[in-house]
Amino acid sequence: MRALVYDGSSASLRERAEPAAGPGMAVVRVHTAGVCNTDLEILKGYMGFRGVIGHEFVGHVEAGPESLRGRRVVGEINFACGRCQRCRRGLGRHCPNRRVMGIHDADGAFAERVAVPAANLHAVPDAVPDEAAVFVEPLAAAFEILEQVPVEPGRRAVVLGDGKLGLLVAQVLHDAGARVLAVGRHAEKLALLEKRGIETRSADGFAPEAERAELVVEATGRAAALPIALAATQPRGTLVLKSTVAEPARLDLAPLVIDEIQLVGSRCGPFEPALRALAEGRIAVAPLVSERSPLARAEAALERAREPGALKVLLDCA
Amino acid sequence: MRALVYDGSSASLRERAEPAAGPGMAVVRVHTAGVCNTDLEILKGYMGFRGVIGHEFVGHVEAGPESLRGRRVVGEINFACGRCQRCRRGLGRHCPNRRVMGIHDADGAFAERVAVPAANLHAVPDAVPDEAAVFVEPLAAAFEILEQVPVEPGRRAVVLGDGKLGLLVAQVLHDAGARVLAVGRHAEKLALLEKRGIETRSADGFAPEAERAELVVEATGRAAALPIALAATQPRGTLVLKSTVAEPARLDLAPLVIDEIQLVGSRCGPFEPALRALAEGRIAVAPLVSERSPLARAEAALERAREPGALKVLLDCA
Repeated sequence: MRALVYDGSSASLRERAEPAAGPGMAVVRVHTAGVCNTDLEILKGYMGFRGVIGHEFVGHVEAGPESLRGRRVVGEINFACGRCQRCRRGLGRHCPNRRVMGIHDADGAFAERVAVPAANLHAVPDAVPDEAAVFVEPLAAAFEILEQVPVEPGRRAVVLGDGKLGLLVAQVLHDAGARVLAVGRHAEKLALLEKRGIETRSADGFAPEAERAELVVEATGRAAALPIALAATQPRGTLVLKSTVAEPARLDLAPLVIDEIQLVGSRCGPFEPALRALAEGRIAVAPLVSERSPLARAEAALERAREPGALKVLLDCA
Repeated sequence: MRALVYDGSSASLRERAEPAAGPGMAVVRVHTAGVCNTDLEILKGYMGFRGVIGHEFVGHVEAGPESLRGRRVVGEINFACGRCQRCRRGLGRHCPNRRVMGIHDADGAFAERVAVPAANLHAVPDAVPDEAAVFVEPLAAAFEILEQVPVEPGRRAVVLGDGKLGLLVAQVLHDAGARVLAVGRHAEKLALLEKRGIETRSADGFAPEAERAELVVEATGRAAALPIALAATQPRGTLVLKSTVAEPARLDLAPLVIDEIQLVGSRCGPFEPALRALAEGRIAVAPLVSERSPLARAEAALERAREPGALKVLLDCA
C-alpha cells in the first residue's frame, strides 16, 4: 500500500507492507486523515519517531472483530497494554508501555490502511460526515479540559491561540457555558469564532493583566506565550497547557507560587463527548479546513500545513 | 524601639519609631520571631522591600481592640484591604492591594513591637509555648497543601527538600495519612523525620523515575530541583511548588503536557489547623530550632541562618 513514511530526515510517499489484523487489532481502510501540529513537530525530530505518520483519521473496518467489520470508525491513538496498574485504573492513555499511532512505535494513518486495537475504535454516527469525523481526535483533546478542570457556566475563560486546537478549545469552553475570550493573531480565524458568539481579541491589543481570568488555556504552540498566559491567570486560577513545544521554556515560577496558580498539562481526551458534539452540530469544524488533498500529493500538502495561517489540511486516502 | 531594618544594601539594628495602633490595628510586643528563607531572599533584593524584615512571630497585644489586649497571639502576614472582590470572596491572602508584613510595604517582626491588623491575629492556646507558636506561620504554609490538593490516607507523597519548610511539609502530609518519602541532603535533618516514622532517602540515592508518586512537593528552594520533582511525579499526578526562587527556571514543559501533570503553586496557609496540630503535639518543631539569639545579636544570627545546614534561627525580641 501507499503510505507517508518519515525516515528521520524527510517524509515521503512509499510502498509499505499492508498492516495485519493481529489479535485484538482491526485494520481500518482510511478515508480521510488530518494533519496535526504534532505531525509537523515529528518531522523536526520530536519523539524520535520513524514510520508512517498521522493519527487523526476516519475510515471503515476491513478486517478485525466481526462486530466492527464494515463500520465507519474513528480511533483513539494510544495503544495501551491493558495489563499494567495504570491501565487497570482506567488510565490507558497514560500506560507506560503504550505505543502511540504515528508518534511512538506504531504506524500511523497517512496511509491506505492502518492497524488499530479494536478497543480503540468508536463507531461514527451517520449524521457526522467524514470531513467532520476526522476532527474527533483533536476535538477530544479539547474536551479533555472539561475532564480536568471544573468549568462553571458564566466563568470567564481566556483561550490563547487561534490555531486549529485553539479554535476547537474556544468552542468547547463556550459550549460548556464559559464566557470565552479568544486571543489570536489572525482576524479571519477569530471571525470564525465571532460567528459562534465568542468574544475575540487581537493578540496585539491583549493586555493580560487587565483580562485576568480564573481559567486560561495556552494553545499557541509557542513557548514564548507562556509568560503572557501566566500573567492572564488570576490568583488561585488555572492555566491549562495544551501545546507540546519542542524547546524548553524559561519561566519565572515565583508568580505561580505567590498567586497559587495551578498549571495543568492536558493532552488526549475522551472521544464520546466529541462525537456527540459533532453529531448535534454544537461545534463547527467545516470552516477549519484549509484544504483537502489526495494522499498522492501528501508531501506538498504537508508543506502548506506548515505555512503561517494554515488551518486543518486533510488528506483523502481512500 | 530597636528593629532590624533593611535599607536596600544591608540589614542592621536601628532605632525605629514605635508603631501606632491605627483603626483596626493592634500593636504586638514581640516575644520571639523566626528567620525564614524569604527573609534571606529579601536581603538579596527579592520584592524590592525596604524596612523592618521578619514575618514569623509570637507576642502579646499591647494596644488595640479591648478583646485582644494582653492576649498571646500569632498573626497572619497578608494585610488585606477587606473591600475588593477577592477579599469579599474570602481570598484576602490574594488581595491585590495587600501589604505583607516584612515583605511588601509593611514593617515586620524583627523588632520590639509590630503593628498588625487585629483581624489577622490568632490567640495562642496555653499548651503551645512561644518557641512552638513562632512556627505557626510556616506550619500554616505547609497546611496550605491540604487546602489545595486532596490527600487520601495511604497515598504516596514525595517531599523534596529537608530544610525548615520541607521538614514541616513532610510531617503535615504524614499527619494527614500519606505514605511520605522525604528526600534531602542532610542525614541529621532526615533523622528528625525518621523518629516520627517517616521514610527518608538521601538525595544522592534518589532515582525520581523509580519513585514516581501521585503527589510530589518541591520544597528545596532551588530551581535546579524542578526537573527532578517533575520526573518524580506520576502521570496525572500533582507537583506542589513551595519554593519562591528568585531566578527563573528553565523547564521542559513537554512532559508536563504529555503526562498531564498538575503544577500547583502554594504559599501562605490557614493558621487554625497549624495551631491545633501544635496544641495536640502532632507536629514536632522543637528539633527544628538551630539557635536562639537575642534581637541585639540579630545581624550575626542572620549570617548563621544563611549557612548550609542551618535550620530555624529564632530571635528573642522581648
